[in-house]
Amino acid sequence: MSDVEATFDRLLKLPGVMGAILVNGEGRPIRTSMDATSSHIFAEKMAPMVKMARAMVREVEPTDDLTYLRMRTLKSEILVAAENEHMIILVQDSNALDEARRNSSSSKRSS
Amino acid sequence: MSDVEATFDRLLKLPGVMGAILVNGEGRPIRTSMDATSSHIFAEKMAPMVKMARAMVREVEPTDDLTYLRMRTLKSEILVAAENEHMIILVQDSNALDEARRNSSSSKRSS
Repeated sequence: MSDVEATFDRLLKLPGVMGAILVNGEGRPIRTSMDATSSHIFAEKMAPMVKMARAMVREVEPTDDLTYLRMRTLKSEILVAAENEHMIILVQDSNALDEARRNSSSSKRSS
Repeated sequence: MSDVEATFDRLLKLPGVMGAILVNGEGRPIRTSMDATSSHIFAEKMAPMVKMARAMVREVEPTDDLTYLRMRTLKSEILVAAENEHMIILVQDSNALDEARRNSSSSKRSS
């Protein structure tokens, strides 16, 4: 299994994950836990966004590079990590994510 | 002072802030703590990204909406909050931000 697939499997286990898509260099979902339609919408829309974000980062600071993009919506949080020419898109339920963040800081408090 | 300007002043005080820009509905920086060139690059590039992100969110789930966009780079973290037709762009040093996040969870631990 490639590194990026190992990363994909690890991210699938994060809290509140509603869906995860691994997209190859041509923008095609090669692994997904979501339905085909949503997978294609996300893959198709995210590719130009990552491209645009990366171009902007480099225009402001040529030695810098994009690591990931996170979009918070009313209902979910979408993480897009660009790994080499692959993209991992993770859709997490925002309530479950906030809960996990609260628990992780309170579990740190009690440890 | 408008709500969005009050939000802008509050965000300026967050840890690691290297720059903050308040952009109006026409994409023009109306307040900034950065130089004019960087302010215009960020304002000009972020507007279409927020538009694209918002369109994607609504295409997947019409009742959902974008709250903010966060871009992590090797050197910084850029937060873009869309408030009504305004945009607040916040550039934070990623090391200072990670340090503040560690301190906030350890200060919760000791309180």
